[in-house]
Amino acid sequence: MATIKAAILGFGTVGQGIYHILKERKQELLEKLGVELEVAKILVTDASKERVQNTLHLMTESIEDVLAEPGLHVVFEAIVNEEPAFSYLKRAVEHKCHVITANKVMFAKRGQELEQLAKEHGVGVGYEASVAGGVPVIKTLKNILLVNNAQRIQGILNGTTNFILTKMRIENVPFEEALSEAQRLGYAEADPYNDVSGQDAFKKLMILSSLAFGEQPNWAEIEVIGVDTISQTDMEAANLQNLRYRHVAEIERLADGTLVGKVTPLLVDNVHPLYSIDDVNNAVTVDTDYIGTITLVGPGAGMYPTASVMVEDYAAIMLKGVGQAVSI
Amino acid sequence: MATIKAAILGFGTVGQGIYHILKERKQELLEKLGVELEVAKILVTDASKERVQNTLHLMTESIEDVLAEPGLHVVFEAIVNEEPAFSYLKRAVEHKCHVITANKVMFAKRGQELEQLAKEHGVGVGYEASVAGGVPVIKTLKNILLVNNAQRIQGILNGTTNFILTKMRIENVPFEEALSEAQRLGYAEADPYNDVSGQDAFKKLMILSSLAFGEQPNWAEIEVIGVDTISQTDMEAANLQNLRYRHVAEIERLADGTLVGKVTPLLVDNVHPLYSIDDVNNAVTVDTDYIGTITLVGPGAGMYPTASVMVEDYAAIMLKGVGQAVSI
Repeated sequence: MATIKAAILGFGTVGQGIYHILKERKQELLEKLGVELEVAKILVTDASKERVQNTLHLMTESIEDVLAEPGLHVVFEAIVNEEPAFSYLKRAVEHKCHVITANKVMFAKRGQELEQLAKEHGVGVGYEASVAGGVPVIKTLKNILLVNNAQRIQGILNGTTNFILTKMRIENVPFEEALSEAQRLGYAEADPYNDVSGQDAFKKLMILSSLAFGEQPNWAEIEVIGVDTISQTDMEAANLQNLRYRHVAEIERLADGTLVGKVTPLLVDNVHPLYSIDDVNNAVTVDTDYIGTITLVGPGAGMYPTASVMVEDYAAIMLKGVGQAVSI
Repeated sequence: MATIKAAILGFGTVGQGIYHILKERKQELLEKLGVELEVAKILVTDASKERVQNTLHLMTESIEDVLAEPGLHVVFEAIVNEEPAFSYLKRAVEHKCHVITANKVMFAKRGQELEQLAKEHGVGVGYEASVAGGVPVIKTLKNILLVNNAQRIQGILNGTTNFILTKMRIENVPFEEALSEAQRLGYAEADPYNDVSGQDAFKKLMILSSLAFGEQPNWAEIEVIGVDTISQTDMEAANLQNLRYRHVAEIERLADGTLVGKVTPLLVDNVHPLYSIDDVNNAVTVDTDYIGTITLVGPGAGMYPTASVMVEDYAAIMLKGVGQAVSI
C-alpha cells in the first residue's frame, strides 16, 4: 500500500475543508483508490497561527518548502487571485504533481495554459470547485460534450447575488438592505464588489466557455452588469407580471461561429429553468444539440461542498490513471 | 488510424438514433478518440424490413452473426425486457466487447452481474441511458460519490406520468383525459401500464440504488403506487394549498443502514427541488453528506437525447482506457 503526500495551499474555509475531508475519508479513499493520502504540508502566509488543531507542524510560508517534500503527489490550491497561485501551481505541475484548484480568477485567465502544461508533464488538473462550488458542472459538461455540442450556457454562478435578489423579491426590501443581510449571514464580504458587480460570475463564465467551446470571447467585449442596478420599483413590476430577476451569466455560440456573452440581471418567466432557483443556490443550464436542455442545481459555496468536489477531482484523476508514470 | 466496429441491438427509436449520431459525429469521434467507428451489424427481429436507408445490408436476426463480425469492439443495446437482452450482452462481454445499454428492466435486475462480468473480461459497461434518458445522472453520481456519501435520492424518472400530472394540474382535466393526450402525442404507449403504475420508475430507482448505495432493497418491500390514484378533486385541493403532485421514486439509507424506498405520488411545496419540474422532463435530486442537495433536470426520453448519452458512454470508456488490452 502506497502512502501519497498532499499539500494544501491556502488554509481558509475551503483549505480547512479539504484537510477535514481527507482525514474523515482516509479509509474510504484507501479502499477505493488503493492509496493512503496524508497531508504533508500546508502553505499559509502566517505559519505561526494554528487554525486547526494539530496542524502547526504542517504549516509553512514557503512554496520551496512545500515542493521539497519527498514524494509529494498532489497539490490542492484554495488561494484567491491569479498570483502567486498560478506560479505555485505551475511549479507543482513541473514537479509532476497533480493540481486541484478552486481559484476562479486564476483559472479563468490561466486555466488553458495550466492544462496544457499539465498535459506535457503527464499530470491531471482538477477545477470543479472553481465554478458553482459543490455543483459538479465541470465534470458533467465533460461527460456530455464528447458527443453533444454546447450551443448556449446560462448560469446563476454567484450565490450572494441570487440571495440578494431572492430577498428583494420575497421581502420587498431595497438592494442595500438585502446586501446588509447577506453580509450579516456571511454570504457577502465586507467589500461586496466582486459579487455584486458580476465580476465573480464573469470569471466563472469564462471557465465554462473554455470548457464548452474550447475558447473564450474577448473579455473586453463582454457586458457585465451588476445587481445593484435593480430598484424596488423594478422588482415590484416584475412580480406583477409573474417574472423574476435572475443574475445570469450567459455565453452562446452564434450560427456564424462567434461567441457572445454577458452577465446581467435577466427577467425570466416561470417556464425558464432558472426561475425556481432561490437563495444561495447556483444553477447552470446548458443547451446542447442532441440532448436539448439540461440543468444542474446545488450549493454554489461552502466549506464542505467546495472542498469535497476538490477531493472528488483528485479521486477521479487517480481512477483515470492520469500520471500513472509519476513515481509515488 | 484504427477502424472500430460497432453493433446495434434493436433498431427502434433509440437504436436508429445511435446509428444517426455515429454517422453524424464520425469526424469528431475520430479527432477525440483517435478511432473511426463503423456500424457493422444491426440486430433486429425482421431483417427484411429497412428502417433507415442503406442499412439493409447491416441487418441480421442472429446474435451469432453479430458476434462473428471480425474486430467487433462495442455493442449498443436498445431492446426492451430482460431477455434476450441480458444473454446477448453477456455473450458480447465474454467476446471482449464493451457494452452500452438503455435497458432499464434488464439493468435493474442484472446490472450488477453484468458489471462484474465486464470487470473480469476487462471491458466497460455504459448504462447512462437506462435512467432519465438524456439527463447524465449516472455519470454525475459516479463523479460525486467517490468522496460524498448519498443519503437519499428522489426522482421524477418517468416523463409520461409527469406530463399527465402537469396536464391535470394546469388544465384541470381528469387522469383519463390527460393520459389520452399523452398517448396522442406519443409520450405514452397504447398499453400505458408500465408508466402509469410506477413500474418503469421503480426499475430506474433500483439502478440508482445499486449505484448510490451499492445494493438494492428487497423489491417486494417497495411500495409502488401509480398516478391513476389521483382524482381531479385531489388535484384541486393541492392547487389551493399551492402544492403540486409529483410522481416520485425515492430511496433512502436510514441511520441503521436499512435501505427504504417507494414510488408514489407525492405532494411537494414550492421550495422542493422537484416542484418546478413540469411536462415530460425528468429530474433527480440527491442528498449527500458533504455537498448537500444537488438536482439534475432534463429530457427523460427521446431518440437523440437517449442515443447521444449512449455514444457519450462509449467515448468515456475509450478515454478512460478501459479494456485497452482488447485487440481491435
